[in-house]
Amino acid sequence: MDLADAVDADRLRADIERNGEFGASGAAPSAPGHGRTNRTGSEANREARAYLVDRLEAAGLDVRVDGVGNVVGRWTPASADPVAAPVASGSHLDSVPEGGIFDGPLGIYAALEAVRAMQNAGVEPARPVEVVSFTEEEGATFGPGLLGSSVAVGERSVDEALALTDADGRTLGEALDDIGFAGESRLDAGGWDAWLELHVEQHTLLEDLGVPVGVVTDVTGITHCDATVVGEANHAGSTPMGRNERTDSLAAASEVVLAVEDAAERRTGTDPAAVATVGHLSVSPNATNVVPGRVEMGVDVRSVERDSMEHLVEETRAALTDVETHRGVETTFDRAFDVEPTPMAERCRAALVEAGERTGIATHEMHSGAAHDSMYVARVTDAGMLFAPSRDGVSHNPAEWTDWDDCADATRVLAGALAALAGA
Amino acid sequence: MDLADAVDADRLRADIERNGEFGASGAAPSAPGHGRTNRTGSEANREARAYLVDRLEAAGLDVRVDGVGNVVGRWTPASADPVAAPVASGSHLDSVPEGGIFDGPLGIYAALEAVRAMQNAGVEPARPVEVVSFTEEEGATFGPGLLGSSVAVGERSVDEALALTDADGRTLGEALDDIGFAGESRLDAGGWDAWLELHVEQHTLLEDLGVPVGVVTDVTGITHCDATVVGEANHAGSTPMGRNERTDSLAAASEVVLAVEDAAERRTGTDPAAVATVGHLSVSPNATNVVPGRVEMGVDVRSVERDSMEHLVEETRAALTDVETHRGVETTFDRAFDVEPTPMAERCRAALVEAGERTGIATHEMHSGAAHDSMYVARVTDAGMLFAPSRDGVSHNPAEWTDWDDCADATRVLAGALAALAGA
Repeated sequence: MDLADAVDADRLRADIERNGEFGASGAAPSAPGHGRTNRTGSEANREARAYLVDRLEAAGLDVRVDGVGNVVGRWTPASADPVAAPVASGSHLDSVPEGGIFDGPLGIYAALEAVRAMQNAGVEPARPVEVVSFTEEEGATFGPGLLGSSVAVGERSVDEALALTDADGRTLGEALDDIGFAGESRLDAGGWDAWLELHVEQHTLLEDLGVPVGVVTDVTGITHCDATVVGEANHAGSTPMGRNERTDSLAAASEVVLAVEDAAERRTGTDPAAVATVGHLSVSPNATNVVPGRVEMGVDVRSVERDSMEHLVEETRAALTDVETHRGVETTFDRAFDVEPTPMAERCRAALVEAGERTGIATHEMHSGAAHDSMYVARVTDAGMLFAPSRDGVSHNPAEWTDWDDCADATRVLAGALAALAGA
Repeated sequence: MDLADAVDADRLRADIERNGEFGASGAAPSAPGHGRTNRTGSEANREARAYLVDRLEAAGLDVRVDGVGNVVGRWTPASADPVAAPVASGSHLDSVPEGGIFDGPLGIYAALEAVRAMQNAGVEPARPVEVVSFTEEEGATFGPGLLGSSVAVGERSVDEALALTDADGRTLGEALDDIGFAGESRLDAGGWDAWLELHVEQHTLLEDLGVPVGVVTDVTGITHCDATVVGEANHAGSTPMGRNERTDSLAAASEVVLAVEDAAERRTGTDPAAVATVGHLSVSPNATNVVPGRVEMGVDVRSVERDSMEHLVEETRAALTDVETHRGVETTFDRAFDVEPTPMAERCRAALVEAGERTGIATHEMHSGAAHDSMYVARVTDAGMLFAPSRDGVSHNPAEWTDWDDCADATRVLAGALAALAGA
């Protein structure tokens, strides 16, 4: 049987729907509008993990759990050198509060389905294949996100990760103990020969193009800048208009918001991946009858080109300097968070494009504007990503949806690429 | 003795400083930096009211308390027709949290000092003179502010006022009972022949001019508009720039903020009293990495000219329509609050200007950009206001300050005008 034909769309769907029942709310998982809240360390998270272990073992994979709860199922076929570096694929089980059923689980169950399809099609890889679930990708409960992968690449130690706390002060270590998923040692992503991750796109490009699979060229770099604009809080009635009379921090901040937007729009002329967003803005004292005295802003800057990120950060600084000069406000600027753009490995991209060509499934090369565990994995081994279409681009929302046919097609491409990378 | 000479600056200061001790925080009341929190119905409020009653009675005034806790001291000299409509003057004892010692109390104790000066100078008014303390001017505890005066002019009934609740659900009625200041019937401001209120300016005009007394021509009209700007919350990374891709409600709202400011600045070319301020702005979901989906704004529009208010409200609407058209957001607009501009009575203004001329104290005619109890009083009788300088324009703040010499000069002008209006 052909490998692509061996991908069982119904089996994949059944796993994703079943996983969607853990922490479920709203409609049935077979339709959009079905939300799920799967926080790391919750009962729903325990159930989702237990179900995954069950499914991995049912497919004959050897399961291990590492010190931060990363779950790995390893398939070592008779054809493989058992000590060869494996190829690996997966994603994450956790969700944001009231998230959808595809963001994360699609990548894990597609990887498992790819292994089952290889088994059913009699594919004989020369390397073991691992199916991976990283802990706490979303960062909705224990800190900054991409947690399991950060430990797997040595960015953060197991002990540092286990000491992270949720809003109630419970540590990740306690949470994993509570649900029986505190394992041993550390998953080492550097031991993989290659890595692939299937994820939902979270925007509308594939939908607009009518193409079922996106092959990721680069994962965006991300900078977060925190800025404050300080003017003078004053009575909105007794303080006349005019720059000599009032120093309105919100009017000044509004110029910065528009300058940041304008700079990013201009940059897309040469770099379509460039984006800059003032997503956070808080006003003080924030009373209708008081001239705003202080504004805090959070600016998100992204591109796959480092030069664009630097340019947009400089434009943000320049906008702040400009309102200092002509409005008399004081400003502060802090580049609080910075991640470099991450190119995907040429051979992983090629494996995905070629798998699409072999199976007759159209692919489109595109960048990822969102962060993913693959950003970390790419630091220590060859990494690739592929996207499935998101209906209306919606994610982190119960309305998140990917058509089952698209899930299956993306899994066929994933299976073909994994088989090729594993030397089948 | 001359009436102006009979104004005892030290006696006035002692009363204001003593009153500043109730609910005090920070420095001594004899210096800026002294805060006070005098919420209606608090122990500090009880103490301030009890001290006022004591001082009124010590000056030989007959004290009554009305159904909403307004306190009135009535001086009926032998020269007066006891059934003639009195002239009245006063202000309020309550403060905002961490307010200053002059905002309100200056107007009450200056009125009392004016009566004492008339007594000491042998002035013989033909009408009784009343010293008034209105309940809950600031609205910091029980609702919208200007409460006692709203009842005294029939804008709101005693029962409606007593049913207002604080943040803990205590009614004004219960609060007044608790402090022993729930009186009977309703003070009727319509029974006054004229009214004068001395208040701190709360801006820097008098300070800049070096003039100790402002004579108010008009109290500003005030409109509050609530607006929402609804775009689409989206991933800040996976959503490209461009109006076809993202609908950023904060960028749209920023254009509105600047349009409102610009419209008001242009209007001051013909109407220096025109102001418009976006004082309130809240972003949702307000996360740095999410394109803002919704913004709520509060716009404060004021002028002494009704036409200017209408013009600025229309400009605010036009700015909202404009971002609907070219940014694809949806907007809502609600004119939640509207008070007409209030001209002060010619004869009250004249009495104040002439009192300044008689005493050799410079006065300057100006409008009030802030709301005051006199706005309501002017609906039912001839009303006037005068301002004393605010150091650096600061108020609603422990740093609020008016020099004692300025307090005394303003009180001299007040005393002269009251004597004239009372037919002395």
